[in-house]
Amino acid sequence: MTDLKNKILSAVNDDLENIEKALFDNLNPFADIITKVANHIMFSGGKRIRPLLTVLCAKICGYQGELDKTISTIFEYMHTASLMHDDLVDEATLRRGRPVIHAVWNNATAVLIGDFLLARTLSIALSYEKKELIQIIAEITESMTQGEILQLINKGKIDLSEEEYLKTIEKKTAILIRGACRTGAMIANATEPEEKALADYGYHLGMAFQMADDLLDYTSDSKDSGKKPGADLREGKLTLPVIHALEKARLKNKNDDVKAMEDTIKKRDGITAVDFMLFNNLLETYGGIEYTRRMAEEQVDQAKAALDRFPLSHEKNVLRDLADYTLLRKT
Amino acid sequence: MTDLKNKILSAVNDDLENIEKALFDNLNPFADIITKVANHIMFSGGKRIRPLLTVLCAKICGYQGELDKTISTIFEYMHTASLMHDDLVDEATLRRGRPVIHAVWNNATAVLIGDFLLARTLSIALSYEKKELIQIIAEITESMTQGEILQLINKGKIDLSEEEYLKTIEKKTAILIRGACRTGAMIANATEPEEKALADYGYHLGMAFQMADDLLDYTSDSKDSGKKPGADLREGKLTLPVIHALEKARLKNKNDDVKAMEDTIKKRDGITAVDFMLFNNLLETYGGIEYTRRMAEEQVDQAKAALDRFPLSHEKNVLRDLADYTLLRKT
Repeated sequence: MTDLKNKILSAVNDDLENIEKALFDNLNPFADIITKVANHIMFSGGKRIRPLLTVLCAKICGYQGELDKTISTIFEYMHTASLMHDDLVDEATLRRGRPVIHAVWNNATAVLIGDFLLARTLSIALSYEKKELIQIIAEITESMTQGEILQLINKGKIDLSEEEYLKTIEKKTAILIRGACRTGAMIANATEPEEKALADYGYHLGMAFQMADDLLDYTSDSKDSGKKPGADLREGKLTLPVIHALEKARLKNKNDDVKAMEDTIKKRDGITAVDFMLFNNLLETYGGIEYTRRMAEEQVDQAKAALDRFPLSHEKNVLRDLADYTLLRKT
Repeated sequence: MTDLKNKILSAVNDDLENIEKALFDNLNPFADIITKVANHIMFSGGKRIRPLLTVLCAKICGYQGELDKTISTIFEYMHTASLMHDDLVDEATLRRGRPVIHAVWNNATAVLIGDFLLARTLSIALSYEKKELIQIIAEITESMTQGEILQLINKGKIDLSEEEYLKTIEKKTAILIRGACRTGAMIANATEPEEKALADYGYHLGMAFQMADDLLDYTSDSKDSGKKPGADLREGKLTLPVIHALEKARLKNKNDDVKAMEDTIKKRDGITAVDFMLFNNLLETYGGIEYTRRMAEEQVDQAKAALDRFPLSHEKNVLRDLADYTLLRKT
């Protein structure tokens, strides 16, 4: 596992350095507090997966210019802004192993700096001549917000369906990653089929990425992920492992197990370590973990298949490795 | 006073009805909770001054189409989104006489529906062919956020300068109103000098509007404004009446009065009705109220002067009346 991660990191080392520089340069001219707060979350070991995708997708289509780094920051800023607003919404306390913004500063700061980063993305996008980029940003913003609102409405909803879950993660995660990939193709003036293929790659990667993330909430420990395990459950956020296990238990008329799971879900912050262990056992029993992993694998396969039309290249290899890594990562 | 308000309202009755319809139509297709929450704040007696300005500025430049109503909603949505985020930041409890969103629903809802409205403005702007409109939106978003951040940083700052105050209200209020007016001219394909004149009108109107608003916090009663008087003071938000009075008292070495004012400011939520009355007396003594009114009047005069280049018309009269009304309004 660590091997694949190291392989990817050394393959994209220069790109990551350039992205880091662009992220910093595009924030630097602003008031002290903005830079300080934004840096707290921006430069605390994030994976830069979104801007990296833009850069790789531009290169796989033959792009050799420098614009891709600047434009790629848009997707990291949008992601960060969304984290800042979501952490507030979720009342999370840790993010990437560090206290979240609104715990260190306050709600106001989290809201306003998030707004500022969104405004920044628009200004950066305007420096680029294509209207399609603004369209992509508008679509992402509307979609992410709708995804978060769906998630909020559905909190604690004990009969959330797989379909509702898929719709939510599509809106809150996959559309952004699709946009990051599509934009790379756009910067390279790629053909329409190429742009569509990379958009598909991004969409399926995003779906896999979120499913894997939701899985980690049950399978990781906080040392690795920087988050308390079971955080989703404590917030009343039902994800695929739970949805599937509940559905299977209901189908088999295992009423005691259904009730046990539902009771734990309703406890929210009152969930103990023992509750969580028992709940996890039921997820295993009813195949929730296994099913989610399989669904994520299918998405990874579809992501890789979307790359078929591209000839072999350094970038194609990295994009394939990134898709595989989705399921291997521990954080 | 009421006479001028009635005169304006009857002069723009049809425009206001069309704007109301456009505001409603552009939100209607979205999920139930979005519409419900957005309606709570959108349709609770707001003055629609921003979209009205877009429509009037389009018409004064000869525009006769229908696009102005749709585009004008952008500025009401941006304003509403900013109110939702600001109320959260300010920890306000009343807005337009009704409980604020985050008191009725919760922080999450205020943040997300605000984000959604901002996303909506982008999508509406994209339906229009001019890139300048996106530029205006980007400028407004960045500016409003910076204004709010400045305000947040400066909370409780006892030696805030008039210059810092002017910079803040420019960013948080005047740039938006300027954008609303400039956009009207753009829709009408106005000449560059016409567009600039209307942008200037909007800028000065916005400055006057915010000064008058800050004045009302000391001179109105809550029955009229739907806000508790002294709210700014309780939040540690120093506005022009206070800044000027403090400056004058310091210049005259009236150390006891300076200390009395500073002590009250530091009390924040602990300010009693008697404290507030005594504080208000000191504002009068040192000319803070009078000075702010005079500064606002100057802005109104500059706003009206910017209209000089336009021949007499129904719209010109209304725009002039709106400027005058800034200083007469009680809410």
